[in-house]
Amino acid sequence: MSELALKAEKLDAADELAGVRAQFVLGDDVVYLDGNSLGALPVGVPGRVEDVVRRQWGELRIRSWDESGWWTAPERIGDRIAPLVGAAAGQIVVGDSTSVNVFKAVVAAVRMAGPGRDEIVVDATTFPTDGYIAESAARMTGCTVRPVTPAEVPGVLGDRTAAVLLNHVDYRTGRLHDLPALTAAVHAAGAVAVWDLCHSAGALPVGLDEHGVDLAVGCTYKYLNGGPGSPAYLYVRSDLQSRFDSPLPGWNSHAEPFGMRPAYEPAPGALRGRVGTPDILSMLALEAALDVWDADGVSVGAVRAKSLALTDFFLECVASYVPSGRVESVTPVAHEERGSQVALRCADAGDVMKRLIERGVVGDFRHPDVLRFGFTPLYVGFADVERAARVLGDLVR
Amino acid sequence: MSELALKAEKLDAADELAGVRAQFVLGDDVVYLDGNSLGALPVGVPGRVEDVVRRQWGELRIRSWDESGWWTAPERIGDRIAPLVGAAAGQIVVGDSTSVNVFKAVVAAVRMAGPGRDEIVVDATTFPTDGYIAESAARMTGCTVRPVTPAEVPGVLGDRTAAVLLNHVDYRTGRLHDLPALTAAVHAAGAVAVWDLCHSAGALPVGLDEHGVDLAVGCTYKYLNGGPGSPAYLYVRSDLQSRFDSPLPGWNSHAEPFGMRPAYEPAPGALRGRVGTPDILSMLALEAALDVWDADGVSVGAVRAKSLALTDFFLECVASYVPSGRVESVTPVAHEERGSQVALRCADAGDVMKRLIERGVVGDFRHPDVLRFGFTPLYVGFADVERAARVLGDLVR
Repeated sequence: MSELALKAEKLDAADELAGVRAQFVLGDDVVYLDGNSLGALPVGVPGRVEDVVRRQWGELRIRSWDESGWWTAPERIGDRIAPLVGAAAGQIVVGDSTSVNVFKAVVAAVRMAGPGRDEIVVDATTFPTDGYIAESAARMTGCTVRPVTPAEVPGVLGDRTAAVLLNHVDYRTGRLHDLPALTAAVHAAGAVAVWDLCHSAGALPVGLDEHGVDLAVGCTYKYLNGGPGSPAYLYVRSDLQSRFDSPLPGWNSHAEPFGMRPAYEPAPGALRGRVGTPDILSMLALEAALDVWDADGVSVGAVRAKSLALTDFFLECVASYVPSGRVESVTPVAHEERGSQVALRCADAGDVMKRLIERGVVGDFRHPDVLRFGFTPLYVGFADVERAARVLGDLVR
Repeated sequence: MSELALKAEKLDAADELAGVRAQFVLGDDVVYLDGNSLGALPVGVPGRVEDVVRRQWGELRIRSWDESGWWTAPERIGDRIAPLVGAAAGQIVVGDSTSVNVFKAVVAAVRMAGPGRDEIVVDATTFPTDGYIAESAARMTGCTVRPVTPAEVPGVLGDRTAAVLLNHVDYRTGRLHDLPALTAAVHAAGAVAVWDLCHSAGALPVGLDEHGVDLAVGCTYKYLNGGPGSPAYLYVRSDLQSRFDSPLPGWNSHAEPFGMRPAYEPAPGALRGRVGTPDILSMLALEAALDVWDADGVSVGAVRAKSLALTDFFLECVASYVPSGRVESVTPVAHEERGSQVALRCADAGDVMKRLIERGVVGDFRHPDVLRFGFTPLYVGFADVERAARVLGDLVR
């Protein structure tokens, strides 16, 4: 057994989260490093979904909107996500896709910022949909979009800045941005900060309340393991909720949704972020998936500590197993700048990833030359990490 | 046995759709007349959902986006809905809520209508969310909203009309509006016609292509039985697709979604109506639910014929069983003006509906005084109808 394999064995033996892997459907034949794209299936989900389909829908039918708690699911599940992103209850609703929530948040942010502010600063390195949606929000609110790198943000803020849309973790490089400092800079300029938490929620502390974030959105199918296309969420800080003016004022956000009134009157609180009828099957699968976080010893702090240990160890194994110069990490070395993934630039990355997957090491390829490996501390162990780096070394040697 | 009960028996015996009820989970103890709110569970759905959760998500994980056809589900399932609303393939995508699709459609309609047209005519009797969303679309495109009854529409159309948003069937009264004539009037004024099919799709012929409808939206959890909050759909007529300029240009509608390009370039065709990652569990439950329409003898024409026979018979039974003056139907008598529901005004309607449900007759109450009974011909029979009217008569006598 190699030195690194021995080290992995020791790290796994000392890992307090090691037992959580049993809460997921994962065979020993696969090293699943794509949980930053689609989280693995929690074992409690299939039974819950079956109950939702067979009993709640099949037997109770329409009564389930009340009796099975369907109607209140968006805010109830929002309150389950809240502690994972450092938010008190009553500030998050679940529903719609991330893209739709980015639209709500950016338009609402511009409206909060008030007249005279007509520029939306957008992370130019963002996942593309955020930029596309910000462009649409700008077009529809009389603003212009200014794309800059997160590092450039403080330098471009000013009296005309309405809103700033930033990613907490870069989807490609895995770089973690400085949410407290950037939020403070946005506030100093009198603008509204909107954060996209897709690649950080469930992997590291976010501290929305602590750092005074205004609005935030995130998906739930990555580190929250909600399942394919599970609904996204929207955070609106409590003191801003009365000024949250949604561009999608559907009946679910009405103060009296069953009053069927012709005039719109927004509900108080986070409910204002709701739109239409929520997709109950996907939403209740997510609710069941969140039970994993209630187990003893599972916390965002413990997850973050293990995540850093996993990515550190992966970089160590890659340095040892992969011939020099064959790959180059584009993920920051400093812990305070690293999310829960490692991205390696590599010639023929698409082909290399294909062969990695054939060998049971599942990451993903991001155009044009990036091998992306996501580390979900709830179900990835150190032996997985060692194996992934070893197989990669074999393949590119 | 009463005369009407005997008649029901004969009608059920002659009903060619009677056997389809076995395709749904429905005990004989309940008369389910709320399928216009939440369709009953098709028997094929639970097994399909279990496969999606356990095998597609649980075992194949990320590979299912390709291998299980997740990525193409929105347009594939759109093509399954297409024949039910009289549309050729390639014009419908499934995803998001009805409210979100109304927003896409109304904004896109205003943009198609071109400059100088700044009025959105909206059905004032519509389900409220359509009106709220139309107001938002108007505010964000520099338009004003003009709410009128459908009958008033032709009289208010003019050079300034950009778009007209209409419901095919009124959710409260069950009135069926004249889609061909109203669409023709909208076109004669040079405006764009947007139809909401929530209460007609799956219950009666719509004829989108035949009547030249421009844009349409609808939900799938009523007469299409897709399950609670199953995703809605958007129809964009093929010759208008290149001009469909979405206010929600998410990455799923990009010409090259995995190119991750900073500039947005819309995909050709109906895909342009997609936004973010689709909610796969809800969407594939819907796909399984649509299998019911593939059975021998099931067609929209057969469903419509039975629907009219059911509502006719219900009105006959109500006239016989319910003391004169106790209820008043607000649903039109003429077949060409009737959807697939009967709405009865009734004193203490809320309390009456509660007691009906206790007696196994499930309809719903709509503020302030309407008892609403929906008739889904795929699983409602004539004996159900007779029983519902009889119980209602007992309760209000």
